[in-house]
Amino acid sequence: MKMILAVFSIFSLLSLCHASVVDFCVADYTAPNGPAGYSCKKPAKVTVDDFVYTGLGVSGNTSNIIKAAVSPAFDAQFPGVNGLGISVARLDLAPGGVIPLHTHPGASELLVVVQGKICAGFVASDNTVYLKTLQKGDIMVFPQGLLHFQINAGGIPGLAFVTFSSANPGLQILDFALFKSDFPTQLIAETTFLDAAQIKKLKGVLGGSG
Amino acid sequence: MKMILAVFSIFSLLSLCHASVVDFCVADYTAPNGPAGYSCKKPAKVTVDDFVYTGLGVSGNTSNIIKAAVSPAFDAQFPGVNGLGISVARLDLAPGGVIPLHTHPGASELLVVVQGKICAGFVASDNTVYLKTLQKGDIMVFPQGLLHFQINAGGIPGLAFVTFSSANPGLQILDFALFKSDFPTQLIAETTFLDAAQIKKLKGVLGGSG
Amino acid sequence: MKMILAVFSIFSLLSLCHASVVDFCVADYTAPNGPAGYSCKKPAKVTVDDFVYTGLGVSGNTSNIIKAAVSPAFDAQFPGVNGLGISVARLDLAPGGVIPLHTHPGASELLVVVQGKICAGFVASDNTVYLKTLQKGDIMVFPQGLLHFQINAGGIPGLAFVTFSSANPGLQILDFALFKSDFPTQLIAETTFLDAAQIKKLKGVLGGSG
Amino acid sequence: MKMILAVFSIFSLLSLCHASVVDFCVADYTAPNGPAGYSCKKPAKVTVDDFVYTGLGVSGNTSNIIKAAVSPAFDAQFPGVNGLGISVARLDLAPGGVIPLHTHPGASELLVVVQGKICAGFVASDNTVYLKTLQKGDIMVFPQGLLHFQINAGGIPGLAFVTFSSANPGLQILDFALFKSDFPTQLIAETTFLDAAQIKKLKGVLGGSG
Amino acid sequence: MKMILAVFSIFSLLSLCHASVVDFCVADYTAPNGPAGYSCKKPAKVTVDDFVYTGLGVSGNTSNIIKAAVSPAFDAQFPGVNGLGISVARLDLAPGGVIPLHTHPGASELLVVVQGKICAGFVASDNTVYLKTLQKGDIMVFPQGLLHFQINAGGIPGLAFVTFSSANPGLQILDFALFKSDFPTQLIAETTFLDAAQIKKLKGVLGGSG
Amino acid sequence: MKMILAVFSIFSLLSLCHASVVDFCVADYTAPNGPAGYSCKKPAKVTVDDFVYTGLGVSGNTSNIIKAAVSPAFDAQFPGVNGLGISVARLDLAPGGVIPLHTHPGASELLVVVQGKICAGFVASDNTVYLKTLQKGDIMVFPQGLLHFQINAGGIPGLAFVTFSSANPGLQILDFALFKSDFPTQLIAETTFLDAAQIKKLKGVLGGSG
Repeated sequence: MKMILAVFSIFSLLSLCHASVVDFCVADYTAPNGPAGYSCKKPAKVTVDDFVYTGLGVSGNTSNIIKAAVSPAFDAQFPGVNGLGISVARLDLAPGGVIPLHTHPGASELLVVVQGKICAGFVASDNTVYLKTLQKGDIMVFPQGLLHFQINAGGIPGLAFVTFSSANPGLQILDFALFKSDFPTQLIAETTFLDAAQIKKLKGVLGGSG
Repeated sequence: MKMILAVFSIFSLLSLCHASVVDFCVADYTAPNGPAGYSCKKPAKVTVDDFVYTGLGVSGNTSNIIKAAVSPAFDAQFPGVNGLGISVARLDLAPGGVIPLHTHPGASELLVVVQGKICAGFVASDNTVYLKTLQKGDIMVFPQGLLHFQINAGGIPGLAFVTFSSANPGLQILDFALFKSDFPTQLIAETTFLDAAQIKKLKGVLGGSG
Repeated sequence: MKMILAVFSIFSLLSLCHASVVDFCVADYTAPNGPAGYSCKKPAKVTVDDFVYTGLGVSGNTSNIIKAAVSPAFDAQFPGVNGLGISVARLDLAPGGVIPLHTHPGASELLVVVQGKICAGFVASDNTVYLKTLQKGDIMVFPQGLLHFQINAGGIPGLAFVTFSSANPGLQILDFALFKSDFPTQLIAETTFLDAAQIKKLKGVLGGSG
Repeated sequence: MKMILAVFSIFSLLSLCHASVVDFCVADYTAPNGPAGYSCKKPAKVTVDDFVYTGLGVSGNTSNIIKAAVSPAFDAQFPGVNGLGISVARLDLAPGGVIPLHTHPGASELLVVVQGKICAGFVASDNTVYLKTLQKGDIMVFPQGLLHFQINAGGIPGLAFVTFSSANPGLQILDFALFKSDFPTQLIAETTFLDAAQIKKLKGVLGGSG
Repeated sequence: MKMILAVFSIFSLLSLCHASVVDFCVADYTAPNGPAGYSCKKPAKVTVDDFVYTGLGVSGNTSNIIKAAVSPAFDAQFPGVNGLGISVARLDLAPGGVIPLHTHPGASELLVVVQGKICAGFVASDNTVYLKTLQKGDIMVFPQGLLHFQINAGGIPGLAFVTFSSANPGLQILDFALFKSDFPTQLIAETTFLDAAQIKKLKGVLGGSG
Repeated sequence: MKMILAVFSIFSLLSLCHASVVDFCVADYTAPNGPAGYSCKKPAKVTVDDFVYTGLGVSGNTSNIIKAAVSPAFDAQFPGVNGLGISVARLDLAPGGVIPLHTHPGASELLVVVQGKICAGFVASDNTVYLKTLQKGDIMVFPQGLLHFQINAGGIPGLAFVTFSSANPGLQILDFALFKSDFPTQLIAETTFLDAAQIKKLKGVLGGSG
C-alpha cells in the first residue's frame, strides 16, 4: 500500500506532462511538417505497428526496362522512423537489372546483399571511381551525396536492403533529373556537353519534355 | 530627429519579419510538436516567467519506498528550455534514499551535489563500473544512455541538481520498465535470465502485470 | 509502351507519399514554427521564386547616423533558406559608415567585400582583438557569437555581402541592447561599469528608457 | 590541347589542397580519435575495400547459452563508415536463440528480418511495452537508448541485419552490465530491488565479481 | 563451463576492436584537438576520477572589485565532459557582487540558485530585456549567445551553479572585450558611440591598452 | 592595485586551461584531421590572417572550354573556416561561360550575383526543374546535394560569390565524374542509358579512360 503511494509519488513527477516530445516522434501526416520532420502523433495513439513496416517482404515489380525496383520505407511511408535519423529501402534486381546512377542528397547509404551478386560503385568528388562486386552477406557504404549505382552481377535475382543515415534521404536518379523532367534540351546540352540528339533520344524513352 | 529616422531606417530592415524563429523558441503546448521540440509561442506572448522555473525550490516527497524523489524541469514542464539543448531536475534523497538504476535515452547528465553525500555510479558498454562517493560541491558526469544510479551516502538528506544535454532527456527506470509494465513475465525471464519467481515478486511490489 | 510502364513501376514506389519532408522545406509563414525553423509549404505550391531573393540588388538607406544599412535575407524574409543552415545580408557603408559592435547569437559570419575598403574586426573570448582592412574581393570569417564590427575604410561607398551558417543567425547590436531598450540605467551601470551619465546620454540618442 | 588546359585550369583550383576533409573520412586506427570519430586515412591510401565489409556473410557462432550471436560492423571494425552516421551488425538466432535485453546508448536501430521469424520488443520511457512477431522481410525500428530484445520465434535459424543511426552505436547488454561486471552485489540489490541470491546466481553464470 | 564459452563467443565479437570511440571520449590534453573537442584518452587509462570534478566545492575568491567569482569546469578543466555537450561553472556572489554583462558564444546557460537571492537578466535580439529576481531553488535559462548578467540581490553571499549546452561554451565578458584588451580606443568609440574619456577611464581600471 | 588583483582573480579561473577548444579551431594542416574537420592550430599561433582569405579578389582563369572558373575558399584553402560550418567560392563566367551540372554532397549553396546576368537552376528529387535568370544583386539558394548549374546570361563577364553551409561542401561535377574518370564506358552506359559513342566522345574531350 505504502509502496503504491511510493511509486506514485515518483512517477507523478514525471507524468504531469503535456503531450511530450518523448523517446520518439511517430509521424502525424495530418499536421504540418518542418525541417526536422513530421509533427508527432499523440503518444496515446501510437501502437507497435507504427514502428513496424511490412511492405518490404515481397519483391518489387521488376518487369520494367531496368529490370529493377526500389521500395522505400522512408519517413513518408514509415511513420516510426520520423526524427530518428534512419530509414530503409528494398532493392530488387532481376537478372540484367540495374539501379541507374543516382544520389541521396541528404544521407549516406549502407547496402547489405541478401541474395545474388551485385556490382556496385560510387564516384568521389576527386573523380575516383570505387567499384566492387559484392557477394551475399557483403556490406558496402556509399558516402553522402555521391553518384552511385548497383547492377545485378549474377545469373539469379539479386536482393539487397539499403539503409540510410536519415529518415528522409531523398533520391535523385540522374536520368530522371535530366530526361524525365522538363529540363530544356538546350540547357542540358550546355551544362553536360551531351549531344542534343542523345538528350532527345533519352527524353523520348523516359518521357521528358522541353 | 534625424537620429530617430536613422535608427528606424536600420532597425526597420530587421523588423519586417513574420513571427520569426529568433533567439529562442518558448514551447507552445497547444500547437503540434516535432522531432526538434514544441512549436514556438509567438514572441509577443513570451514573458520572463517562460525562462524561469520555480518548482524546484522545495523538496520532492521522499516518504516512499525509495526514500527519494525526482522533480524534472524538462521541456514538457519548463517552456523556456524548448529547443535549447539543456534541462534540469532536482534529486532529493532522504537518509537511505536511492534513485534506482536508470538511463536517459537522449542525453548525458551532469550532477551537482548541493547537500549531503551521494554515492553515484554508471556502467559502460564494456561493463566497467565507475563508482564514486561525492561530497557537497562535487560534480559527476554520466555519458549518454548508460545505466547509472545515485544513493544517499550520508546520514542526512541529500540534495542534488542534475542537468542534461537535451531539453527532453527522457528517463527509463530499469525496474519500472521491467516490473511496473505489462512486459510478459516469460519474456522478461528469457531476455534477462531472471527467475520467474523474482520477476513476479517485483511485479507485485511495483504493480506490473503480464 | 513497355517503357512507360517501366518508369511508372519504379517511380510509383517513390511517389505514394504524404506531403513529404523532401529536399527542402520552404517556409510556410502561416503555420506554426519550431526550434528547427518554419513549417514547410506544400511542395505543390513551391515555385522558383521561393528560392530567389531579389531585395538585395539596391543599396539600403544609409542617410542615417551610422551612415550604414543592414538588409537581411534570413528565413523570416527568404522562405527558401528555411532549414538549410544558410542565409545572407547586404551591408551598405557610406563614407564614414559604421556597422556598430554586434553579435550573431546563432551563427558564424562570412563577409565578402564587393566594393570599397572595409575595416573589420572581432574580439575573441580571451580578449584578443583581430583587426584587418579588407580590399575588394577579400573574405573574412567571424566565429559564432563573438563581438565584431565593420567600418568603411575608403573614401567611397562600401558594399559587402555577409552570409551566415544558419537560416536564422539573429543579430544583437550592443548599443541597441543597452541604449535602445528599457534596460534600467542602474543595472547597466552595475553590469558594465559605465558611468550613468554616459548611459543616459546614449539612451537619449537611441531612444532607450529606464 | 586547349581543352586539356581548360580542364586543368578549373580542376587545379580544386586540387591545391592539403590532405582534405573530403566526401568521407576512412578511419586511420593509428592516429588519435575524437568525439566525432577516428582520424581520416590519407585519401591516397583509401581503396574500395575500405568501403566494403565482408565479415557478415557467414553465421556467427550460436553454439552458446543464448543460442545467438551479434556480429558488428561499427567504425571500430569497418573503417569506411567512420563519420558517416551509420553502421550495421548481423544477428544470428538459432532455434530458441535470444538477444538479451540491451540498449544502444548512442543510436536508433533498424532491424530487417532476412530469415525465420523473430519476436522483438522495446520498452518506452513511460513503461509501455511494444512487442511484435516479425516475418521475413519485415522491418522494425527501435528508438535511441531504449531497452529492447530479439527472440527466435520460429523453428528454424533466424537471421537479421540491424543498422544504426551512428557509426558507433555502442551496445550495453543489461545482464552483462549487472552480472558480468564487478558491480558490487549490494549496490545492485539496492538499485534494482533484486534479491542478493538472484544476483549471485547470475554472477556465477556470467562470471561477474563483487 | 559451456556457459563460459557461450559468453565469450558473444563478447569476443564485440571486443575485437581498435581503441574505439565508445560511450565517451575523455579528453587527452596531450594529443591534437579538433572542432568537436579533444582527442580521446585510451579507454584503458580512463578512471572514475575523469568523470568527477572536485574543484567546485569551495567558494571562489570574491575579494575583488566585482565581489564575485566564476569557477568553470569546462572541457579544458574537466576531461570527462569532452564531447558530451554539457559543462558547468560555479558562481559566487558576495553581497554587492556582480557577474558583469557577458555572453557564451557557443551555448545556452541554465542557472540554479543554491543560496541567497540573485537578480538575473538577458537581452534578446529585439532588445527586449528579461529580468527576474531569483530565490533559492529557482532556475533560469539564458538562450545561446545573448548578453546576460547576474547580481547578488540579497544581503548574504549568493551561490549558483550554471550549466551549459556545450562542453566548451566560451565566455566573453563585455568589459574585458572592450577595456581589458588592446582594442583601439578610437575604434571602440566609433563602433559603440561611447565617449573616448569613458573608454580610457575603464581601460585604466581594467588594464586595457590601445 | 586591488583592482588588478580583482581582475586577475576572476580571469585566472578562466585561464588555467590546456590548449583549449575555444571560440574557433583554425586548421592545422600538419596534424591529423577527422570527420569534424582539421585539428586546431594552437591559439597562440593564430593571427588575423587565418580569418582572412585574399585569393578571391581577382578573376579566375576563364580562357578554357567552359569559359568559367571556380575558385574555392573551403577549409582546405582557408584555415579560419575550419569547423565553423561555412565556406565560399568565387565564380567567374566569361560571356558564354558555363558552370556545368554539379552537386555539393555535403552542403546547401547560396549564390550572390555581383556582376552581369546569370541563368541558374537546380533539379529536385521529384524531377521538378527550378530555373531563373538572376540580375546583379539577386540571391538564389540551392538545397543540399541537388544537381544545379550556372550560365552567363548576359553579354558581359558574370561574377558571383557562392557560400556554403559547410566548411567542406565538396564539389562533384557530373561530367568529370563520368568522363574525366576511369569509370568503365560499359558501366556508364548501363547506368545512364547513354550511348557508348557519346560516352567515348566526351571521355576524349575531358581525358577520361576505361
